[in-house]
Amino acid sequence: MGPPRVVLHSPARRADMHLTGQTPREIAFIERLATGFARSPLQCNARHESDAELIRLPGYGVLALTTDAIVEEIETGLYDDPFLIGWMTVTVNASDLSAVGAAPIGILINQTLPPDWSAADLTGLQRGIAAACETYGLPVLGGDTNSGRLHLSGCAVGAIVDGLPMTRRGAKRGDHLLASGPLGIGGAYALSRTTRRPGSTVRYRPRARLAEGQLLRRFASACMDTSDGAIPTLDELGRLNDVGFELDSTVRMIVDTDALTVTDRAGLPAWLLLAGPHGEFELLFTIPEEHLTEFTEAAARVKWQPVALGRVVEPPGLRFSDWDRGRVVDARRVRDLYGEVAGDVNAYLEALLTMDRAAPITSTS
Amino acid sequence: MGPPRVVLHSPARRADMHLTGQTPREIAFIERLATGFARSPLQCNARHESDAELIRLPGYGVLALTTDAIVEEIETGLYDDPFLIGWMTVTVNASDLSAVGAAPIGILINQTLPPDWSAADLTGLQRGIAAACETYGLPVLGGDTNSGRLHLSGCAVGAIVDGLPMTRRGAKRGDHLLASGPLGIGGAYALSRTTRRPGSTVRYRPRARLAEGQLLRRFASACMDTSDGAIPTLDELGRLNDVGFELDSTVRMIVDTDALTVTDRAGLPAWLLLAGPHGEFELLFTIPEEHLTEFTEAAARVKWQPVALGRVVEPPGLRFSDWDRGRVVDARRVRDLYGEVAGDVNAYLEALLTMDRAAPITSTS
Repeated sequence: MGPPRVVLHSPARRADMHLTGQTPREIAFIERLATGFARSPLQCNARHESDAELIRLPGYGVLALTTDAIVEEIETGLYDDPFLIGWMTVTVNASDLSAVGAAPIGILINQTLPPDWSAADLTGLQRGIAAACETYGLPVLGGDTNSGRLHLSGCAVGAIVDGLPMTRRGAKRGDHLLASGPLGIGGAYALSRTTRRPGSTVRYRPRARLAEGQLLRRFASACMDTSDGAIPTLDELGRLNDVGFELDSTVRMIVDTDALTVTDRAGLPAWLLLAGPHGEFELLFTIPEEHLTEFTEAAARVKWQPVALGRVVEPPGLRFSDWDRGRVVDARRVRDLYGEVAGDVNAYLEALLTMDRAAPITSTS
Repeated sequence: MGPPRVVLHSPARRADMHLTGQTPREIAFIERLATGFARSPLQCNARHESDAELIRLPGYGVLALTTDAIVEEIETGLYDDPFLIGWMTVTVNASDLSAVGAAPIGILINQTLPPDWSAADLTGLQRGIAAACETYGLPVLGGDTNSGRLHLSGCAVGAIVDGLPMTRRGAKRGDHLLASGPLGIGGAYALSRTTRRPGSTVRYRPRARLAEGQLLRRFASACMDTSDGAIPTLDELGRLNDVGFELDSTVRMIVDTDALTVTDRAGLPAWLLLAGPHGEFELLFTIPEEHLTEFTEAAARVKWQPVALGRVVEPPGLRFSDWDRGRVVDARRVRDLYGEVAGDVNAYLEALLTMDRAAPITSTS
């Protein structure tokens, strides 16, 4: 008898929107409205097909464009350090450029700042923005600053001038599935902030994989960042490519060791670290068998050590060959759960634990 | 003896930020922080030198990028119609592309939507976005949707592939000063919403001048949109170019007739319509004498009738050859006033009227 398996079903695609406070019905409604917008003939990607929008500029190459806001993380109090808020405003956008393999051109920053913020808060925020931009070689091109309730967003621009961009589509049966680094620190941070035991907060300063993305573009068949956590990302990749994934590695092998201490200390199952929706901004990608050696050599040359996860398989669904305490989880349900509890972090954690304790909702034979 | 004159002094340049709720000291502080960001070697414009950021893409041309949010207009209740909010989210960004003469490529839309919004509100907002995008030929390339307090922003992208972009710099003594259309409807709308007399609200649905901007790029020496109102725009253009402006036309000749009814009915001076900070999204631009005939002919061919305002002159300052009731106003002070009253619309109006009643603060001989 084989190990228990996680199965992820493949219903209609969900909107790629961070509508974590809205119900699936509301998400579907807004999604329907948004599909009424006219599209551009220059756009290479279909909706949700890539982390950044891809615009063909004749005679030049492909422009990568993305915009992301930091909203729920501020509203829920998950981010309250101005430096982190600044850092993340840049990182969430830079990460989308990474996932298409674009070279960075720059970023526009949209800041709405509370009139009563102190000079220290304002300085911290700008330093966080500046530090991330310097780290990524992503210059600030401009922006807009307003007064009001704290709200941060960015719009990052990159270019692909020598070949094709990566998208979320292209994974084929037999391809290797890898992560750009250990997973779970996003989940661990959210968990440590929610439980708020003294000294339990883990350091969270994810680094968008811009250089890795550009290298990866020469080898990967599909790529997506884990901005919403690892399981939702695999869910989306699987459904977009009509494939499934077999994870050969155990959960404990692929998660960050700092992240593991959080679940271990709290007596929680390690797989919660992969549940999302607060991600670690690593890249999940697939490499065809024939490119694997060349890819790993190229990665080693730049001292980058990706994490092997498993393989792309034909039957849809996500199968872990090992699973903590032998439970089976419906990963599709994991992905939708946070929206269903209307973004209540404690209710979400409770629901995940209930799921972990419950009998399997779906499973393969 | 000549008519009374408006003089606008030319101190250090103010930040081009819509920090209308913050004091000038706070604006200066944030501006100082922001100047610490690294700039891109591909960027053609200096800070505040153009309405959109201009990025040189080797072998292609110049990319125009801009981002603008709708914040104070929502917070103050100035915009409460979801369709108008959607329309303006696109228009404020499209207008920046117009002012550099870019051809539209597309727009990214960032929406933070209240969980308790009705289907009618959501539909109205999306329809406003779609209507503006269709009007401007500006496809929606993508975006980000979040749940929370209502907040809308856009990031528009355009291109200039046959020549140079327009900037705010380049106006020379003797150039003609024109507006793309009658001014004042932005001020009239704000005024009508503030006084809230029954039936007094004017229709406000400004149209970004995208086609006109592209035509203008062949002729204009400098250009800027009136997103913050006409007087603040002339203030900025004058100081950036180290010039002044003589307005030959009377205030009543250059303002929109619908706008005039608002001030006339309220017994207010018509020049308030030009004060800002709520603008009409027309373009103010300068045309060298030698291009004027060719420009007016080209405009006439597309049935576009710009409004002649006056001339660029050497001495700094803004001079109206006519002024309502013969008063003299410090236009620099007009520009800063809204920030000084911390964005309180009623206090702002009161301060403008006080200014109108007061003795001249500065004047030319």
